[in-house]
Amino acid sequence: MIGRINHIAMVVPDLDVAAAQWRDLLGADISAPNILKDHGVRIVLVRSVNGQVELMEPHGEKSPIAGFLQRNPEGGMHHICYEVNDIGLARQSLEAKGARVLGDGLVQTGAHGNPVLFLHPEDFNGILIELEQVSAGGTE
Amino acid sequence: MIGRINHIAMVVPDLDVAAAQWRDLLGADISAPNILKDHGVRIVLVRSVNGQVELMEPHGEKSPIAGFLQRNPEGGMHHICYEVNDIGLARQSLEAKGARVLGDGLVQTGAHGNPVLFLHPEDFNGILIELEQVSAGGTE
Repeated sequence: MIGRINHIAMVVPDLDVAAAQWRDLLGADISAPNILKDHGVRIVLVRSVNGQVELMEPHGEKSPIAGFLQRNPEGGMHHICYEVNDIGLARQSLEAKGARVLGDGLVQTGAHGNPVLFLHPEDFNGILIELEQVSAGGTE
Repeated sequence: MIGRINHIAMVVPDLDVAAAQWRDLLGADISAPNILKDHGVRIVLVRSVNGQVELMEPHGEKSPIAGFLQRNPEGGMHHICYEVNDIGLARQSLEAKGARVLGDGLVQTGAHGNPVLFLHPEDFNGILIELEQVSAGGTE
């Protein structure tokens, strides 16, 4: 079911500081910052040959990553996102096998405008997994 | 400096259970388990088109991930590994800019037999970054 790794997301307390560190210390290729207002985050992409890291800081009043930053004030690794071909089928199959979808269980529109869902980290050893529907994104 | 993402490592309390979840729930392509005795871990690779996740459980008495599992009994995301061309140059450049290398600061032999180092997560917003020297692994 899961296909390409779309991104690995990291939460940071100060996006500009973090982006400068990745650029200046690690020599990383970084994007300009981008506010995703509907998702309550401001992000910078760290692009590499075979994938990308998303550095994120909370934006606005009700950011979904504010709680993570309260628990981890320094920041940390937040989630990994895999591409799938058909998120409806993925959800059906996962729920049939007992995995839980976060929130109201419905497919949402993700930060890239594609349908996404997040799986409950309690079902995957504390690892938060996002699935994103991308054309030809999965293995079936 | 940093090149390909070599792997994203996750610590799990029970490797066999976790590997079965990734295989059966997520339909992931997983490897057979492998004990890396010198590194104090038992691992399974979750292979996808553009990268791999390493699921790891502690192995032996002095596993370097035992402490992580004590702090996070459920498991969680542990580190991200980037490839570089020349780890000696990478270390020199990073230390010159104030980043700290974990342990005795020396380059070690990593789980894949290549020279590796780990950067101090306090210098990178709580994110543990491994650098691994792979021929033609970096951007310079």
